[in-house]
Amino acid sequence: MADKAQLQEAIKTQGEVVRKLKSEKASKEQIDEEVAKLLQLKAQLGGDEGKHVFVLKTAKGTRDYNPKQMAIREKVFNIIISCFKRHGAETIDSPVFELKETLTGKYGEDSKLIYDLKDQGGELLSLRYDLTVPFARYLAMNKITNIKRYHIAKVYRRDNPAMTRGRYREFYQCDFDIAGQYDAMIPDAECLKIVYEILNELDLGDFRIKVNDRRILDGMFAVCGVPDEKFRTICSTVDKLDKTIPALVSTPAEQNGADEAGVSVGSVAGGGRYDGLVGMFDPKGRKVPCVGVSIGIERIFSIMEQKAEASSEKVRTTETQVLVASAQKNLLEERLKLTNALWNEGIKAEVLYKKNPKLLSQLQHCEETGIPLVAILGEQELKDGVVKLRNVVSREEVKTFTTLMCRKKKRLDR
Amino acid sequence: MADKAQLQEAIKTQGEVVRKLKSEKASKEQIDEEVAKLLQLKAQLGGDEGKHVFVLKTAKGTRDYNPKQMAIREKVFNIIISCFKRHGAETIDSPVFELKETLTGKYGEDSKLIYDLKDQGGELLSLRYDLTVPFARYLAMNKITNIKRYHIAKVYRRDNPAMTRGRYREFYQCDFDIAGQYDAMIPDAECLKIVYEILNELDLGDFRIKVNDRRILDGMFAVCGVPDEKFRTICSTVDKLDKTIPALVSTPAEQNGADEAGVSVGSVAGGGRYDGLVGMFDPKGRKVPCVGVSIGIERIFSIMEQKAEASSEKVRTTETQVLVASAQKNLLEERLKLTNALWNEGIKAEVLYKKNPKLLSQLQHCEETGIPLVAILGEQELKDGVVKLRNVVSREEVKTFTTLMCRKKKRLDR
Repeated sequence: MADKAQLQEAIKTQGEVVRKLKSEKASKEQIDEEVAKLLQLKAQLGGDEGKHVFVLKTAKGTRDYNPKQMAIREKVFNIIISCFKRHGAETIDSPVFELKETLTGKYGEDSKLIYDLKDQGGELLSLRYDLTVPFARYLAMNKITNIKRYHIAKVYRRDNPAMTRGRYREFYQCDFDIAGQYDAMIPDAECLKIVYEILNELDLGDFRIKVNDRRILDGMFAVCGVPDEKFRTICSTVDKLDKTIPALVSTPAEQNGADEAGVSVGSVAGGGRYDGLVGMFDPKGRKVPCVGVSIGIERIFSIMEQKAEASSEKVRTTETQVLVASAQKNLLEERLKLTNALWNEGIKAEVLYKKNPKLLSQLQHCEETGIPLVAILGEQELKDGVVKLRNVVSREEVKTFTTLMCRKKKRLDR
Repeated sequence: MADKAQLQEAIKTQGEVVRKLKSEKASKEQIDEEVAKLLQLKAQLGGDEGKHVFVLKTAKGTRDYNPKQMAIREKVFNIIISCFKRHGAETIDSPVFELKETLTGKYGEDSKLIYDLKDQGGELLSLRYDLTVPFARYLAMNKITNIKRYHIAKVYRRDNPAMTRGRYREFYQCDFDIAGQYDAMIPDAECLKIVYEILNELDLGDFRIKVNDRRILDGMFAVCGVPDEKFRTICSTVDKLDKTIPALVSTPAEQNGADEAGVSVGSVAGGGRYDGLVGMFDPKGRKVPCVGVSIGIERIFSIMEQKAEASSEKVRTTETQVLVASAQKNLLEERLKLTNALWNEGIKAEVLYKKNPKLLSQLQHCEETGIPLVAILGEQELKDGVVKLRNVVSREEVKTFTTLMCRKKKRLDR
C-alpha cells in the first residue's frame, strides 16, 4: 500500500480531474471512469476518509461455507465418496467453463439460466450448468465407450434462488454414471442401489425411491390425445408436480423425502438414462448408452446443518488432538520444540501464538475448539524431563517422559 | 431425442424458413438466429446428415482430469490436507465468482487477466483470481479477527498458458493462512514449517526455501537511488528473476526446486505477509494482520504425473478389492447377490454388467484395473455353499463358505 500522505494527495488531484470534467460537461462514460478511479483511491485509503463503502457480500444466490459448514460438508462427502468407491467407480474432473456451443441445444428453455462469460477476446465460454453434458463431451472427445465414474463439483444456474431451502445459483452436484452397452438393466439397478445406500447412511429419515419410464408417460399422453408438440411441455409440468405437492400436502409418507420431525424435504436425488447425449457430440453420431444418478447435496447439507444446530453435540472444525501449553512464563521455545516433535510423529497439535499465554486461556482454547488433550510444560517438569498430560474434559492428569510422550499420545488418541 | 423422421421433417421446414428470410433480405440477426436453430436440429440428428461439426475441446488453457490424473491428484491433496489438519487448521470455501468490485484495485496491472462474467442483468461478477482476496473479503464481511484456515480451490487467470509446464488458465491453489494479531513471528515460522513438511512428504527431491523481507529490498533500492515510483515495477522484475534463471542456468543446487533427475522445476510454493488487505474491505479500515503460503499444486501434479509415467508401477484408478465372477452361465442373480452382501459389509466390490461373461474376460478386467481378488462362483460351489477366492497375481486359491466370505475378505484386504 502506498504511503498515506501520497494517497491523500492523489485523491485530491483526482477529485479535481472529476470536477473539471463535470464543469466541462464531459461524456458520462468519461466522468464515470474518472469517478471509479477516485473511489478506488479512496478505498485504498480506508478509514473514514474513504467514503466509498464496499458492498461486503457474495454474489446473489451464492454463499461462503464457514468452518462448521465445511466440517458437515466433509462428513457428507465422505459418505457419498465411500459409496461410489465401494461400487468401483473412477472419478474425473472437468473445467468450470465449457465452450458456449458445447452447452447449446442441451437444456431447452432452461438455456436462459446459463451463465455466460464476457467476450474478452478468444473463445465464447459458459459456466457448466450440470455435470452430465461435460461428461458426455468428455466421452465423445476421448472416444470412451465405457466407464463407471463419479464427479463431484459445483454447477451454475441463474435461477431465482431460494437459499433457505438449500437452493443456490452455485451448488454442488454429486453424479454417478455408468456409460456403455451392457446387458439387461444391471447398471440401472446399481444406480438405484447407490441412492439407497447413500440415503440410508446419511440417516436423513424415511425416503421413497420412485421408478418410472418416460415411455409409459408418453403412452398415457398418447391415450389422452396429447398432440406430439405438447409432449415436452407437459412432461416438464408433470416433472414439477413432485416439487409442488409436498408444499401443499401434509402427509409426509406420501412425499419423496421426510426428515426425523416428519417434515418433508422434497426430492434429494434424481437420475435416469440418456442414451442419445454422447451421440450429439460425436462427429459420426455414435451413441454411448448412459445411465446415472445425481445426489442433491445442497438440500442434504441444509438438513444436516439444521440437525447439527438442534443437537447438543458440538461440531468440531479442527482435528487437533493436543494443545501444547505452559504453566509459566518464558517457555515459548520449549512449547515450540514439543509441538514440533509431535508434528514429526504425525500427531495433530497446536500451540497458542503468544509469548506468554495464561494457562487459563490455553485451557479455554481447548474447551472452545474441542481439543481433547493438553500437554502442560512447567519449569519443574522440564527439570525432570517430563510433561503433564491432561484430559480436558475429565481433568485427569498423568506425567510422562517427554521422550515417550509422542508414543503415549498416539495411544491416547480418540 | 425426437424420432428421426420427425427431425428430418423439422430440418426441411427450418431450411425453408432460412431460405425465405435470405430471399427477403431479412436482417443478419434474424437470419443468424434461424440458422442457429437449423444447426441445432442438424446436430440433434447426428450422423453425416448433421453437417455441423462440434469443436470437441475444453476451453483454452484448461483441461479435463482423467481417472489416472485424479488418482494422483487425490494422493497429493491427501498429503497436503493432512499437513494442514496436523497444524490445527480449519477450512472454508467461497464462491467461484465475486462481485467485480471486490477484485478491483487488488492486482495492479494483472487485473487485465481477470475473467469477467457477461452482464446478463444484475450484479457485475468476475471469476476469482486467487484465494487471498476472497479470504480477506470473508474476514471483513464476518468481522473475524483471528483464524487459521486452509482453502483448496480453483482460480482463474486469462494468462498465456504453458500447459506442458503445468501452467493453466484454470488451476488449483492450496492456501494456508493465519490471520490475527500475534506475538513475535510464530505464525510466519509455522508457514515455513508447513512448506517444509509438505515438500518433504511429497518426496519431490531437494528443495530450497528462500526467506526475504520486502523492506530489505526496498532499502537496497533506496541505496541504489531508485525513485519511489519505480519501486513496484522493479520489485515485480526481481520477483520474476527466479522464474527466469532456472531455464538459463544449469546448476540444480542453485534453484528453488529440483526433481530425482536433477532438472529444476522452478518455484512450487510462495507466500508472505499481507497486513493491509483486510483493512481495504473494512468500512472503518480496521486491519487484520495476515500471513500465509500457497502451494503451486499444478506444477506438483505435473511432476507426479511424469514420475508415474516413468515408473513401472501402475496407478490404480479404483479401489475395488474384489470382483465377483462366475465360471458358468446363468449365474447373474447369484453374482449380484454376493456382490450385494459384500457392499453391505463395506467391501469394495464389482461385478461385470453382462449376463454371461467369460471367466477369462472377468480375470482380464481384474488384471487391467488392478483388482487383487476374484470370487468365483460355479454350480458345484453353490451346491456346497462355498465360493472360490483367487488371488489374481499369485493365482493362489482358497475355498470359503459364502457366509464367512465377507469377514475373510476383510482380512485378505490389500
